[in-house]
Amino acid sequence: MSRRILVVDSVCTNRILGAADLSAARFDVRTCDSADAARRALRDGLPDLVAVGVGEGAACHDLLAELRAAPRTRALPIVAVGGDGGTAARLAALQAGADEAFPAGVDPALLVARLRSLLRRRDELEDLRPHDAAARALGFGDEAEPFAAPGRVAVLAGPSGAPPAALAEVIGRLGRRAQLLRDPAELTRQKADVVLLDAAGGAAGPDAAGRLAASGGCLSPGALFRAIAEVRAQGGRRQAEILAIVPPGATDLAVMALDLGAGDLVTADVGTAELSWRIDGLLRRKRVHDRLRDKVRDGLQAAVTDPLTGIANRRFAMATLGGMARAAGPGAPLAVMVLDIDHFKAVNDRHGHVAGDCVLIEVAGRMAAALRPGDLFARIGGEEFLVAAPGLGAAAARDLADRLRAAVADREVEVSNEMCANPAASVSVTISAGLAIGQGDEGDRLFGRADAALYAAKRDGRDRICLWSDPTATAPRHPVRVAVAAQPPGGPRRDWLSSRSA
Amino acid sequence: MSRRILVVDSVCTNRILGAADLSAARFDVRTCDSADAARRALRDGLPDLVAVGVGEGAACHDLLAELRAAPRTRALPIVAVGGDGGTAARLAALQAGADEAFPAGVDPALLVARLRSLLRRRDELEDLRPHDAAARALGFGDEAEPFAAPGRVAVLAGPSGAPPAALAEVIGRLGRRAQLLRDPAELTRQKADVVLLDAAGGAAGPDAAGRLAASGGCLSPGALFRAIAEVRAQGGRRQAEILAIVPPGATDLAVMALDLGAGDLVTADVGTAELSWRIDGLLRRKRVHDRLRDKVRDGLQAAVTDPLTGIANRRFAMATLGGMARAAGPGAPLAVMVLDIDHFKAVNDRHGHVAGDCVLIEVAGRMAAALRPGDLFARIGGEEFLVAAPGLGAAAARDLADRLRAAVADREVEVSNEMCANPAASVSVTISAGLAIGQGDEGDRLFGRADAALYAAKRDGRDRICLWSDPTATAPRHPVRVAVAAQPPGGPRRDWLSSRSA
Repeated sequence: MSRRILVVDSVCTNRILGAADLSAARFDVRTCDSADAARRALRDGLPDLVAVGVGEGAACHDLLAELRAAPRTRALPIVAVGGDGGTAARLAALQAGADEAFPAGVDPALLVARLRSLLRRRDELEDLRPHDAAARALGFGDEAEPFAAPGRVAVLAGPSGAPPAALAEVIGRLGRRAQLLRDPAELTRQKADVVLLDAAGGAAGPDAAGRLAASGGCLSPGALFRAIAEVRAQGGRRQAEILAIVPPGATDLAVMALDLGAGDLVTADVGTAELSWRIDGLLRRKRVHDRLRDKVRDGLQAAVTDPLTGIANRRFAMATLGGMARAAGPGAPLAVMVLDIDHFKAVNDRHGHVAGDCVLIEVAGRMAAALRPGDLFARIGGEEFLVAAPGLGAAAARDLADRLRAAVADREVEVSNEMCANPAASVSVTISAGLAIGQGDEGDRLFGRADAALYAAKRDGRDRICLWSDPTATAPRHPVRVAVAAQPPGGPRRDWLSSRSA
Repeated sequence: MSRRILVVDSVCTNRILGAADLSAARFDVRTCDSADAARRALRDGLPDLVAVGVGEGAACHDLLAELRAAPRTRALPIVAVGGDGGTAARLAALQAGADEAFPAGVDPALLVARLRSLLRRRDELEDLRPHDAAARALGFGDEAEPFAAPGRVAVLAGPSGAPPAALAEVIGRLGRRAQLLRDPAELTRQKADVVLLDAAGGAAGPDAAGRLAASGGCLSPGALFRAIAEVRAQGGRRQAEILAIVPPGATDLAVMALDLGAGDLVTADVGTAELSWRIDGLLRRKRVHDRLRDKVRDGLQAAVTDPLTGIANRRFAMATLGGMARAAGPGAPLAVMVLDIDHFKAVNDRHGHVAGDCVLIEVAGRMAAALRPGDLFARIGGEEFLVAAPGLGAAAARDLADRLRAAVADREVEVSNEMCANPAASVSVTISAGLAIGQGDEGDRLFGRADAALYAAKRDGRDRICLWSDPTATAPRHPVRVAVAAQPPGGPRRDWLSSRSA
């Protein structure tokens, strides 16, 4: 499928020429003759990129600014085309909201390469930014920028010659945030967010900071290409954004630099303000990219975390238990416990849901503190928890279960959180636990046995632990947990019952 | 930070030369002189890529196969270096597990470009494949391949000349899965998983399928570069994997093709078996990439879904309620309901947890069926649900709440699921609901009011609905839900109570 481009230009010949260039490059082009027509077209559906003719000046800039501000079009790549190609016009278009600005009559090969680079970059971000309600609920739509340390910039130039004037000045302004590389070998060691690669050099001008003396000069085309490929091979968070500086008119060099993965490109006659603006844009893009990566990680973490207690949830527990059970065997048993807070409903009814939440958080915390680092601990139901402890036989598992029981029962739970109905209340809480030991059993089966033992503990009066032990020495049929709980074949043997210790 | 490469070669000069080439290309190189030493080194920590000298034949292949089979090293890029460069040796190394195989004396520029392309590709996958326990629980570690339709392959060659012999034969074998493009313009319209770009042509040989007559010939270097850039600009799922075919010895062309983003590369004298093997490898990679993208989306979806009922969870509800509440206002009120299953604990105690789960699923299903598409519906606690219905004033919201109550209460819930303790049981279930209407209030506040009204409905005997209405006309202080529930200032007014209808 071709990428769709919306061309907006009030001048008929511009629309025709622009559409012809882009169609020749296999884009699917639609044209509009006014900002209003463009607004209507965008309401019908979003293209992959918008090209706005800015020959008319201010009115076009309004459209740019509007597209950039609206949540629906904010992430659309936008290119401004037209004007005299002067520094001031280009900067104005960028500041109005364009990602790139080209003069009328720009070489179509360069224009197309730039569009491709903008589309690729957008795709990379979209890969990390789902657009459904789930993503919105997880905060992906939230574009507000948290505080971020100012980014770092590395500059690589060639072995001889003078840097472009704007580059020298910008480096001076960046001060300690700029790092000058003397050798391409340093590219793999830099930790910059943006790397400037100077393949132009020589627009003379004073070296404002006097810091370029040693590096000065510019990269050969081959060195530029290699440098881009090397920075891109750094990977993930370590991969910096790239800005290439090429001589004016070096279209082939520019096209190749963009297709190789330079995120932005200027010619050596760039102004200081524009260069600063573009560097800031790349720094922002890097931050957005890194943040999206974090959000994906956080979102996936959230999928396996119980939001109230912060411990693992049932999904995580069930997915993990199977592997732990398979890994167990003779000499390395797995102890599985299902634990339930006794009479929890009464806490909710008497003290309110918020007090109930306090109890859940406190109980989870006390049990977590009594477990070992490698133990699985999850909230698998309203007031129900699962523990899987590798390497524990029946005796050690009973000890652990009793430590968990005691940690909960030994002192009352203060529900003094200001969210609670009765700020000064404290509640006496006990738990019951069912315990099963596996040596190569399936996770589901172990869970079923522990759950059946939990029922026995509940029936026996609560605040106690019951160890499942198979009275028939034949494996009960699926579903274990229910068959055993409802019609226990003699019931799980209660060979170890703890009495209330408080 | 430099990318770390582990060089494994039993021949001392190979190690020294290999390490020198790679260090010159700014990689961080560590060497091992045997497979055993490599195994030890890999236990200490994983590099970014492994280069294995395969001059010694079978023993080296064992190491390749072992690295590819072990879960920990399965995704490591592996390059085999050495041997005579003949077709058979290369294919053997690839089939043993290498991602790429080069003869001794390969041009270091080509070697390095290929390593970069392998590293980049690995990074793209790693970006989508978190490695923590959360990801494992969500199935990211699961490499088992589900059934997949055979992939499609598009072939683009130039306007004249004959295709390489192996290409002609492979196209013949692929049959209808191969699509021949006659013009680069067709690149943007193809829907292939792998695109073969022939920039070599002319190793003559018969056109096995007689299908290449019209396309024949090969791409110029410029056309190859443009084609790669165009395929890469297709984006996301639409972006095909690229295999470039270049003339033997055309190192510069090969380096540029790899750096531009070709996923694999062969010379025109490639054998049929090797070309097929590489195409299959790219098809597999495309499938893995697409599946990882799906898993990220599914994982994020899971983060906001209640696994038992399949409806939204509390996280989603709380994140979404705020926006809905803000969007409400005079003329477009928002109705918020908190609903709770009455005496749910008794169901669990009497019929078992599985029956309780059946009830939750059935109740959620009945309520979902009674709601409108735009309504928010979530399970926010064990047996507690939230509904937010935009555009409903008090009267319409009461009607809706009563429909929900009736949908649950009007007939018993069959817990005839075979997982249930008592397969034929049916259970009488009722719900209570608290209702609050907002016009510009905060989501939290509305929720607190609805929750307070729910308490009142419970106190009044359950199976009924209670509408919150502010008795003092001053906003209660935070936290609303608890202050009102525990010490109601006169209590929420119960101006509408439904009686039990069954």
